[in-house]
Amino acid sequence: MEEPCSACVNPHPFASITASEIKSAVEITLPLAAIRHNLNQDQIAFKSISLKEPPKSDMVRYLELEHAGKPPASRPKLPRRVEVLYYIKNTTNIYEEIVCLDDKSEFAHSAVPSIHQGLMDPLENRGGIQVIRQSKVWADALKELGFNEDDEILYDAWPHGADKDTPKISPRYLRAIGYVKGPKGSHAENNRYAFPLPISPVVDILTWEMIGIDPLPTAGIEPKKWVGSACDKEEAEEKEAEEEISSRWWENTVLKNCRPSNFFDDLQPQRRKDVKPIVVTQPEGVSFTVKDASLVEWQKWSFRVSFNFREGMVVHDVRYDNRSLFYRLSLSEMTVPYGDPRPPYHTKQAFDVGDAGAGALANTLRLGCDCLGSIYYFHGLCNGPSGQPIELPNVICLHEEDNGISWKHTNDATHASVSARSRVLILQTMMTVGNYDYIMAWKFDEAANISYDVKATGILSTHLIDSGKVSPWGNVVAPGIVAQNHQHLFCLRIDTAIDGYNNTVQTEECHPLDDTLNIHGNAWEVRKDIVEQAGFRDANPLQNRVFKIINENSINPHSKNPVGYKFMPPPSQMLLAHPSSVNAKRAKFAQHHVWVTQHQEGDLWAGGKWTTNSSEEIDGISKYVAGSDSVRNDDVIVWITFGMTHSPRVEEFPIMPTESLSVMLKPADFFTQNPALDMPQNHTGVGSVHIEQPPCH
Amino acid sequence: MEEPCSACVNPHPFASITASEIKSAVEITLPLAAIRHNLNQDQIAFKSISLKEPPKSDMVRYLELEHAGKPPASRPKLPRRVEVLYYIKNTTNIYEEIVCLDDKSEFAHSAVPSIHQGLMDPLENRGGIQVIRQSKVWADALKELGFNEDDEILYDAWPHGADKDTPKISPRYLRAIGYVKGPKGSHAENNRYAFPLPISPVVDILTWEMIGIDPLPTAGIEPKKWVGSACDKEEAEEKEAEEEISSRWWENTVLKNCRPSNFFDDLQPQRRKDVKPIVVTQPEGVSFTVKDASLVEWQKWSFRVSFNFREGMVVHDVRYDNRSLFYRLSLSEMTVPYGDPRPPYHTKQAFDVGDAGAGALANTLRLGCDCLGSIYYFHGLCNGPSGQPIELPNVICLHEEDNGISWKHTNDATHASVSARSRVLILQTMMTVGNYDYIMAWKFDEAANISYDVKATGILSTHLIDSGKVSPWGNVVAPGIVAQNHQHLFCLRIDTAIDGYNNTVQTEECHPLDDTLNIHGNAWEVRKDIVEQAGFRDANPLQNRVFKIINENSINPHSKNPVGYKFMPPPSQMLLAHPSSVNAKRAKFAQHHVWVTQHQEGDLWAGGKWTTNSSEEIDGISKYVAGSDSVRNDDVIVWITFGMTHSPRVEEFPIMPTESLSVMLKPADFFTQNPALDMPQNHTGVGSVHIEQPPCH
Repeated sequence: MEEPCSACVNPHPFASITASEIKSAVEITLPLAAIRHNLNQDQIAFKSISLKEPPKSDMVRYLELEHAGKPPASRPKLPRRVEVLYYIKNTTNIYEEIVCLDDKSEFAHSAVPSIHQGLMDPLENRGGIQVIRQSKVWADALKELGFNEDDEILYDAWPHGADKDTPKISPRYLRAIGYVKGPKGSHAENNRYAFPLPISPVVDILTWEMIGIDPLPTAGIEPKKWVGSACDKEEAEEKEAEEEISSRWWENTVLKNCRPSNFFDDLQPQRRKDVKPIVVTQPEGVSFTVKDASLVEWQKWSFRVSFNFREGMVVHDVRYDNRSLFYRLSLSEMTVPYGDPRPPYHTKQAFDVGDAGAGALANTLRLGCDCLGSIYYFHGLCNGPSGQPIELPNVICLHEEDNGISWKHTNDATHASVSARSRVLILQTMMTVGNYDYIMAWKFDEAANISYDVKATGILSTHLIDSGKVSPWGNVVAPGIVAQNHQHLFCLRIDTAIDGYNNTVQTEECHPLDDTLNIHGNAWEVRKDIVEQAGFRDANPLQNRVFKIINENSINPHSKNPVGYKFMPPPSQMLLAHPSSVNAKRAKFAQHHVWVTQHQEGDLWAGGKWTTNSSEEIDGISKYVAGSDSVRNDDVIVWITFGMTHSPRVEEFPIMPTESLSVMLKPADFFTQNPALDMPQNHTGVGSVHIEQPPCH
Repeated sequence: MEEPCSACVNPHPFASITASEIKSAVEITLPLAAIRHNLNQDQIAFKSISLKEPPKSDMVRYLELEHAGKPPASRPKLPRRVEVLYYIKNTTNIYEEIVCLDDKSEFAHSAVPSIHQGLMDPLENRGGIQVIRQSKVWADALKELGFNEDDEILYDAWPHGADKDTPKISPRYLRAIGYVKGPKGSHAENNRYAFPLPISPVVDILTWEMIGIDPLPTAGIEPKKWVGSACDKEEAEEKEAEEEISSRWWENTVLKNCRPSNFFDDLQPQRRKDVKPIVVTQPEGVSFTVKDASLVEWQKWSFRVSFNFREGMVVHDVRYDNRSLFYRLSLSEMTVPYGDPRPPYHTKQAFDVGDAGAGALANTLRLGCDCLGSIYYFHGLCNGPSGQPIELPNVICLHEEDNGISWKHTNDATHASVSARSRVLILQTMMTVGNYDYIMAWKFDEAANISYDVKATGILSTHLIDSGKVSPWGNVVAPGIVAQNHQHLFCLRIDTAIDGYNNTVQTEECHPLDDTLNIHGNAWEVRKDIVEQAGFRDANPLQNRVFKIINENSINPHSKNPVGYKFMPPPSQMLLAHPSSVNAKRAKFAQHHVWVTQHQEGDLWAGGKWTTNSSEEIDGISKYVAGSDSVRNDDVIVWITFGMTHSPRVEEFPIMPTESLSVMLKPADFFTQNPALDMPQNHTGVGSVHIEQPPCH
């Protein structure tokens, strides 16, 4: 245990950073940095300012006292520290400054190795786009394509990425992909992704110079011949609809084959009128409580919620009936690589957590739109490049939902039918990353199951394709535009604490049994395998491979098995990029489903702490597993990589119906019976007739 | 087209059978059968009485006229036929009688080959149990185990099944698995599955004789040694709880190590008090309509619902915006084999559709228990052994649910956030099969997705195990009882009609691309493969194998792909029984995930029409695919086998939290844009501000 600050203010160590804490951290950092680098303070800018959680060893002791009922004053006063990532403007020189707020001191300082770059911040993104807008070369290029100053162009700013020809220290370039919203004064919500430009400017965001303009390939191949031909009727209808469009601004441009494709309401002719409202109310209020804006208690669950710049929503100290389950649950990274081999498309690969920050991108949620019912909202904070705190209202919502039937049985002897409704508590956050939008939720139920659900929605990243052609690298989802095949691969980090802090991972598979025991051939064996050393294991659903996080020190009195939680990793296709490619080297975490590592302070980032323009995942999972750490009956982290290979459907344009993925964690011999047994139940039949809330009619 | 009856009464051909139709079919059949077999009518009994749907070729023509707006009188008058399966009591002589109700005539008659047996009906099940209850040998055996006449024993009646030593024509035996409810007068809802008998009587249900009493093995193995030992605290608590139990009737019986484990409310000491109600209302009513008690119209969806003895809920003629998608959707079969090799456990293998009838086992659903909100209920009918119609009220429920976010995007240029809520229509049925309960639902959403969801709940099938021992073939879920490992494998039958009645199945996989096109290594290829000939294909999620049901005659105008619906079969482990075992031969359908066959009238039964005590799946999928039928651009049936290998958890006793499985069908280039685009939407931001129902607050 480190020596606590004498002046500790003593908020709960998991409480999110506050605006005054951000200000205070900046006030400590700025003068120190100016002196250290011999600069004026205005030459310093900030990437992210985040709470530096206390070491787990300290926190475990703190939590033991907390859950033993000790008041805050009787728990250790842990230093309140903040990690400030700052850089010198117009350079890639980044520094990690850890400050202690309690005594306003520097706790640690280090320069980030020059091979790494920080995320692209608003100064850089906006500045880069500004360079493009002011470029004569770019204006001339647009003119050649048929556009004039009246045409409003909007840009998706992408980190330039890296490929095999990128120098070891990547240039700090921004790639813009431009889309035409329409002529000035056209509807603000015109869907620009229906009008993609076939050229892409690249800007050096250190020198603020245009580096060049890359053509974006638009060639395609002839469609395959089928028995039928494209429906004439629809084409005729489309033609008719087109004739109603008064301003055909695209007609004399390179986008002449594109057509408007909108989702905003007054840009659509037809609307359903037959969707009658569903009203969800909780007349007696919600069943959960939130204390200190962070501690959630519901049914037998308790956990703390925090929010930070990079990860967004984080869940801490998850317990059921005061037995610990998980120390920390977070989205560690995600990567979205695209599968078009033609430069410069090959560098399209986003790392949305590392490159942008899931917290910084979080949506403000709204009742009736994002959630129905009685909602509690958590607020969040991030920071701007000058270090100013930015309030993010309603970034996490918490509510209950009815979840169908929890359990049911009809007794054939008495015809009594007994059932309980399932109730689920949902902790949800959403983020927008350029074209895409993601919904992330933790769901807790009364049977002690936990799931992490990710939904993808928003707009496909589109490019121009020649008229009448199709692409082997994507699908033509609207006239003149192709949406490339891509993958979304998420990595969920699970800091385990199943009935204590020493855990073990065990896989179980079912295999046909082929020996003298099995003379009738019906039986199978359950093969159990303990993960002794840090490493990875893949999903294998066809052999029913189940992963159990067990505690070998705590044995179920019935089954004599260690208590545990089990999961089956979603059997997603892993990263398709060739292992030797830069795309794959940047995201080694995305090459296997389940990783098991020994807990080490700061090992939080599956793809490494520094993903922007990286050529390789240097300090990510591949490093965390590189040693020969024992992970048996130890402090264990489980990482689950899952996602989807997304071959776009026409139905996903102009806006994509949510696509869902889910990781379910279930108790496996953790309890001595179904933990939902005591839920309110309903029954009919010849047993003692008894009707509870809610009544059966 | 066959000649219609002159006297056709002309209900919709998909309308479920009525009580008067069942009566009428019996009235036609009974005298014919008595004369044919030279018997009294009371020597005849009935298995199932079901509507014989018109041939698909006739129905297609009928539906074309219906959807072209022709009134019933202008459509063909199709004969209303009923399939009556009757048998001669105390024999396995079964007959298929097809009668035409319109002119009360026999349409066809055939004797079922003697290798087949019908399902076990209530006459047989109840009669068999009666034989056991009256058996002196059995009473003596119970006495030896420590029971007396005061102990109430209840029996699960299982078909005897078959193994490698069973004669070609299986004996018609019933195996009973007995459980002790408690002494006479004990609570009617005591969970008998906590007290399983270690012996099992077998009865010949043709001669009504006791065949024998099999010991049910109770041996186990020593548990593995772990670091920790079973928690003393819990054991002490249990001991204390036990001491409160006044009547310890089991103490002097073979069940002395078992303990009560109940779920019924007044048998449990502790109940949650903190679950506050969630109320779901639709103040303006529901958004769907039901016509003729069978035609459902909702949003742009339409389909018909029917109910029959064997399949329970069936969905017909599914359309979206009047474009056809599916001709018929049904649960064709399910099998539940157990993995304990020790006789007689090796014969535990249920076929719940074929052996019992999903319709006959359907639950009566209740508002607030099985469904919340504004519910429409469909009634069902089955028949008893004397041919009497049996009313099954509320066997299918239909309701809408809010389903989270349908789509959402935040425009980074304007900060306008636009979203639509998703709405889902749920058609749900439930059945109880002895210890287990299943919930089956079709879900339709506004983005034109359809899913088939199966949930398993109820009670594990349990057996006695020696004190302190564990089993390699299952898990000890409560004191003295083991729940064996088993599988639940369902087969969903999809009679396709994607934009017409000639369809093709295509698989698509993503593979790393390794050629000169891929110099940066980021790209992959989508390999497409058309299923030309009837056969099977397995799930392959790790290569993102997607199955598309396409219509090669109808091409999407944007993508130039045939219109289609796609699915990924749940990557369930298939049947574990050795292919040479009787268990596997009985369920060949359960050995592969996806089967594609050419439509043939009557090919409805994945595991064969006759599953009871079968030694082999003779006339099921394995026969349907045996020829070299073309299935390209043809009348195609797709069968999806999915399920779970169930290694019981302690948390699944005494009643099991629902375990869910889902098959999702999504449009894939069927439409020209997102079909949910016209849903009511909400938005904020700098676009034209406009708030629709439901409002955002």
